[in-house]
Amino acid sequence: MTTTAERKAGGGGGKQYKVIGQRLPKRMGTEMVTGHALYGADIYLPGMLSGKLLRSPHAHARIVRIDTSKAERLEGVKAVITGADMPEVKPGATFPMGEVPVDISGLAGLCMAKERAIFAGQPVAAVAATDPYIAEEAIKLIDVEYEVLPPVVDLLEAMKPGSPAIHPDLKTKTSLGEIENQGPTNVAMHSVFARGDVEKGFKEADVVIERSYRAAMAHQGYIEPLATVARWEPDGRVTVWTTTQGAFTILMQLSTVLGLPLSKLKVIPTEVGGAFGGKIYIILEPTAVMLSKKAGRPVKLVMSREDVLRATGPGSPCVFRIKTGCKKDGTITAIQGWMAYDAGCIPGSPMGAGMQTSVAPYKTPNLRLDGYDVVTNKTRVHAYRAPGSPQAAFAVEQNIDLMAKALGMDPLEFRIKNCPREGDPQVTDVPWNRIGLHEIYERVKRHPHWTSKLEGKNRGRGLAAGFWFGGRMTSSVNIKVNPDGTATVLTGAVDITGTRTAMAQMAAEELGLTPDKIDVLTGDTEAAPYNDVSGGSRITYTSSNAIYRACQDLLDKMRKRAADRLKVTPEDLTFAEGVFKVKEGHASAGKALTLKKLAIGGDGVPAGSGSTSRLQSAPAFAVHLADVEVDPETGKTTILRYTCFQDVGKAVNPTRVEAQMQGGAVQGIGWALTEEYLFDDKGWLRNASLLDYRQPTSLDLPMLDCEIIEVPASDGPYGIRGVGEVPIVPPPATLANAIANAAGVRVNAMPMNIERVYWALKGKQKELAPIPVPAPAR
Amino acid sequence: MTTTAERKAGGGGGKQYKVIGQRLPKRMGTEMVTGHALYGADIYLPGMLSGKLLRSPHAHARIVRIDTSKAERLEGVKAVITGADMPEVKPGATFPMGEVPVDISGLAGLCMAKERAIFAGQPVAAVAATDPYIAEEAIKLIDVEYEVLPPVVDLLEAMKPGSPAIHPDLKTKTSLGEIENQGPTNVAMHSVFARGDVEKGFKEADVVIERSYRAAMAHQGYIEPLATVARWEPDGRVTVWTTTQGAFTILMQLSTVLGLPLSKLKVIPTEVGGAFGGKIYIILEPTAVMLSKKAGRPVKLVMSREDVLRATGPGSPCVFRIKTGCKKDGTITAIQGWMAYDAGCIPGSPMGAGMQTSVAPYKTPNLRLDGYDVVTNKTRVHAYRAPGSPQAAFAVEQNIDLMAKALGMDPLEFRIKNCPREGDPQVTDVPWNRIGLHEIYERVKRHPHWTSKLEGKNRGRGLAAGFWFGGRMTSSVNIKVNPDGTATVLTGAVDITGTRTAMAQMAAEELGLTPDKIDVLTGDTEAAPYNDVSGGSRITYTSSNAIYRACQDLLDKMRKRAADRLKVTPEDLTFAEGVFKVKEGHASAGKALTLKKLAIGGDGVPAGSGSTSRLQSAPAFAVHLADVEVDPETGKTTILRYTCFQDVGKAVNPTRVEAQMQGGAVQGIGWALTEEYLFDDKGWLRNASLLDYRQPTSLDLPMLDCEIIEVPASDGPYGIRGVGEVPIVPPPATLANAIANAAGVRVNAMPMNIERVYWALKGKQKELAPIPVPAPAR
Repeated sequence: MTTTAERKAGGGGGKQYKVIGQRLPKRMGTEMVTGHALYGADIYLPGMLSGKLLRSPHAHARIVRIDTSKAERLEGVKAVITGADMPEVKPGATFPMGEVPVDISGLAGLCMAKERAIFAGQPVAAVAATDPYIAEEAIKLIDVEYEVLPPVVDLLEAMKPGSPAIHPDLKTKTSLGEIENQGPTNVAMHSVFARGDVEKGFKEADVVIERSYRAAMAHQGYIEPLATVARWEPDGRVTVWTTTQGAFTILMQLSTVLGLPLSKLKVIPTEVGGAFGGKIYIILEPTAVMLSKKAGRPVKLVMSREDVLRATGPGSPCVFRIKTGCKKDGTITAIQGWMAYDAGCIPGSPMGAGMQTSVAPYKTPNLRLDGYDVVTNKTRVHAYRAPGSPQAAFAVEQNIDLMAKALGMDPLEFRIKNCPREGDPQVTDVPWNRIGLHEIYERVKRHPHWTSKLEGKNRGRGLAAGFWFGGRMTSSVNIKVNPDGTATVLTGAVDITGTRTAMAQMAAEELGLTPDKIDVLTGDTEAAPYNDVSGGSRITYTSSNAIYRACQDLLDKMRKRAADRLKVTPEDLTFAEGVFKVKEGHASAGKALTLKKLAIGGDGVPAGSGSTSRLQSAPAFAVHLADVEVDPETGKTTILRYTCFQDVGKAVNPTRVEAQMQGGAVQGIGWALTEEYLFDDKGWLRNASLLDYRQPTSLDLPMLDCEIIEVPASDGPYGIRGVGEVPIVPPPATLANAIANAAGVRVNAMPMNIERVYWALKGKQKELAPIPVPAPAR
Repeated sequence: MTTTAERKAGGGGGKQYKVIGQRLPKRMGTEMVTGHALYGADIYLPGMLSGKLLRSPHAHARIVRIDTSKAERLEGVKAVITGADMPEVKPGATFPMGEVPVDISGLAGLCMAKERAIFAGQPVAAVAATDPYIAEEAIKLIDVEYEVLPPVVDLLEAMKPGSPAIHPDLKTKTSLGEIENQGPTNVAMHSVFARGDVEKGFKEADVVIERSYRAAMAHQGYIEPLATVARWEPDGRVTVWTTTQGAFTILMQLSTVLGLPLSKLKVIPTEVGGAFGGKIYIILEPTAVMLSKKAGRPVKLVMSREDVLRATGPGSPCVFRIKTGCKKDGTITAIQGWMAYDAGCIPGSPMGAGMQTSVAPYKTPNLRLDGYDVVTNKTRVHAYRAPGSPQAAFAVEQNIDLMAKALGMDPLEFRIKNCPREGDPQVTDVPWNRIGLHEIYERVKRHPHWTSKLEGKNRGRGLAAGFWFGGRMTSSVNIKVNPDGTATVLTGAVDITGTRTAMAQMAAEELGLTPDKIDVLTGDTEAAPYNDVSGGSRITYTSSNAIYRACQDLLDKMRKRAADRLKVTPEDLTFAEGVFKVKEGHASAGKALTLKKLAIGGDGVPAGSGSTSRLQSAPAFAVHLADVEVDPETGKTTILRYTCFQDVGKAVNPTRVEAQMQGGAVQGIGWALTEEYLFDDKGWLRNASLLDYRQPTSLDLPMLDCEIIEVPASDGPYGIRGVGEVPIVPPPATLANAIANAAGVRVNAMPMNIERVYWALKGKQKELAPIPVPAPAR
């Protein structure tokens, strides 16, 4: 129901704003960093119990017997549950993620093992007791007899024909749902995107380059561990406080899993101390609810850091083989890729997104991508900031640099030559709408970081592009004007990036108020209008649409009221800076009413509501540029200079946009250089602490410079693009290209830690095994 | 903006409803009585401190010096404040109660004494400490030097010329704001309602009866003591959890008192364990906020029962002289009344309401009422269920019975003869709209309780009428349909009587759903649309209007969407039982869409909002009938049978309506027979515990029978009238009339406890002093 006028506004790059574009401090920022904000673990209820989980030490084991009797007898223990107490979720039961039904049965099963544990760290029993120490003690009193089964840990091993099948019934399906392989197999899906004829394209090429790359499993590294409080009331109403990216998303999952109508359930999102895709699906929630039901008291579950690393959903490991063909003049003739993404213990890796983002920055007449979604006995991956895309870019962008080098072309010019424009086809063949990749390259070209000469030994400069879709789905807001003329926006969107600040700016813009007059509240699922998950870089973009509409709805009502009180027609009024004025020339000209005056009175309190319509996508591109020095003796990489270029459509709050660019870059750099899950061959994670799982700190980094490019998106009232995810995409490839230029070696696996670079420098890099291509369809 | 059609619906007595009228259990009822509900004292926050108040032992004293240094040095004490730390509130500062500005400066001052304590129990200092025992200890370490001033305790003494003036600057004003007496005086207001010529009326009368009556101060007796948690954030945002009848009402008061914009303040109403008018104004809140500000941590303040009785706002003591003139045929020719209401230590008794309700059940051509609002050194009175009206009815209805007896008429027939009808003038001369008093009397007349003969010695039957206005002001709701087809109503109205259940029924009626599909949430002031206080019997009445409009708003949007999806026009659709269907005869007839199907999708989530318009009043009358036995030796009154008759307009949930009728009657019975504040001559409350302040228990009462009469109100979609308050009005007069018939004596003061009845039986009843009529205007 978007109007044409509204869509036109999307193109309004030249539009002048008063509040949109202002640099404002992040709302709740001080509270969040000083510990005043109420995070998941900060919820206390009268009579609340502490819950603890007993976790499987085996990556794959049959549960023969669980004896909880000793734990139950411990004083202070109020409930002990095992898989037998958890609700049965029908296989294939779904909940709606936007309009897409998502199978939640598997994820629900991972919350508590029933017959089998399929990753090391999977809960097998839970206790609620009057304090956490008693609960911990009780956990130790639970006796579990396991029959250990052979685990499948490595992605490529899992794909090999003859590998033990983790799920005996698993079949390989195509993205269209057809069965390609009846199994037994660990490959859950084989997806293909193809255009033209790649064989022909490679024949036309003067240069063909084919390489394989690998990415490790890495964690989102959010500071706040998962924490949930559940309260099951005597009348069967359930309230859940939880740290999540999507209160409604958790609500819908719980409704499906618990078999309760939405009107009996309420999810209250707490402040979130980082999420990055890792707080979308149920992990602790169903267990907390069932413990509360059994104990008849509220129950809190809080993860330790070890729990977080071992048993939440990290980013997907990936193996990516990429083949590129090019003419001497730099025209790409064909791209072919094979990519296997490791989903962990049940299907659902970000393979699809990885495929679609991988070669997005390039035009090619001939394309074929084969993607595989593979299961292993590891914790199930979840989304991690632009899920699937950094791993893919790590492969694609290195091959692009290799190609430019082979052709003797400047890597930037080579990219510009093959850069897609509006109307060119995406991987899916859907044509691009307005995109700003070309404008980004033009900015890079003129930027002092690019034009400066990099001096010094063992130093190199690297460049890489990245793409993320920009999610859509539904966002909704209510807006009301308070009796003192301030206004409150009620949203169901959890603020994980500063979206409350941006929403205040947008509402202030529309209502003609200063942003300090606008309060933005993240409501619970009962209070707030429906909102899909805060993820996919979608909130600011889709909320701009919802806020614009809610403000129009509100102003329409206020205009009628103003007209009524001033005894003129609504058309006789102008509106600016929060004031309705009778137009010049009218007999009542000069009469005026402020929103404040109109806000209260016996004629009721007007409220506006707005919800996103079917918005077009707002594609986001980023290009990063890095200078590094590689120590030839140790293999240590030091980043000397780093600049992020990104098309953000319209920066509502440039300070927050830059924070997203920097934050994404840091996470990409961490994955690029140090972050990695290290499993032993039994599937046991060996570095489940932040001492051994090495995230970058501020001491590891130079200032990350940001260049904001504003090419308005094709849709939405302000031309905004989502900004949160794409900045994680280029760093691994950017640093790989910089390391190659500094040290003369290409590292084929990320993280490119000291050890890997060292062996590459020694010429002893571990070669990657080929991707075992599964048996053809039967 | 109410449409004519909507107003017409108000008259729809014959309208058939599916859900309205159903007897449903009270939502949250089980939780509330089992302790699962979260009341004010059930809020816990990380780092929360316990606060305690030091209270003045003197009813009137100058504070010479406060030394808090010892308290501040006690380990665990995080903040100590006195009046000097409290914000200065400008004299005359107001907040809006509906559209009426209410002076909050005086009430704010009572929260913490600055120079003077003006009632015994007034806080003079406060402490916040890491636990309540330390706080209690610290309170004892505060050294206060008082200069004790002479207290004014008795209402009639306070009115005497020459009585010490509590407020040196107080002047007697008229209700029009004119100064009648420059002071010094303790009479804050003198209000007059007059019609015709009472002297002439009394001359025309065959019988004139004049008597004086007195009512004691009585407490609302809510089970849950006041409790507040305040959190002052580093960025200056303030959140307050509190047990209140009006989250927005507290919000507006705090905003005025603290000088903070509404967008910086948030009030979260907890479940309320009884209120009855006693939880409308700030008492603990400003102190909790200022303690939190000083300590930098959240602070909880919870009252003890003693605190509640000593230092919250009880019902007003009253002296009422009433003079009635009548012809032999039973026609009232004149009524004159003088009534003084004791406000406690600052002006603001319910004098106005007392005057307007007092003679509402009677027509008279000649009327004069003089009301006085008087201050004394007692805790300031607040509203108590139909504030001012039970005291007035105690006087008026006894005189009516005396008159009927003097004329030899049946007291019911006498009342029917003088009963007002639609169009007759109220005390204010505004004509009554549709009222059901006559219909109530007709029901009484036919009722077995009335027609049966009362056998036995020392027994008597009494009858009395009562009136309450029915409040209006603003109510608003938002409504949304959830993705599973359930719906959620968001209201800012605190549910003190079961209004969530009624709201669910009304929304279910409009949306064609069963009530279990409707969830009703009391939101906080940030989330919920604006709502005035839950008081004045206004919530169900005004919410009916808001819900009706919100549902229409929602259904309009849903209808458009349905038409869009079914490719028909909105006019082609019918709506019933939650389904839009294409009308018979249309080419697409048979096609249909449920609310559930329409609730989610890429075209956004529709929400409806509705707010009350300028509704007409919905006046409420009740008549009670009681049989009692009075023990001639002890004076103890036993209630044998009790029936409540009430015109409720339309009973949305008859079970809840009866609960209100019974609950109101019980409180009236308690005040009638036992409940009384006993002050010594220094103004110290001597019975500040529920052992010594005697409320009735279930053992003191027979079953209270209820007769619901439904004369639809003139306005609102369903003809509802508020039902909560009027049932407290008739009991004291009903029992007084019954006692008179049983024992042959009239007790001139309520409570008519054993002692008073005993002395009346002995002919030694204490006569009331006359009301000292203040000096005339200068």
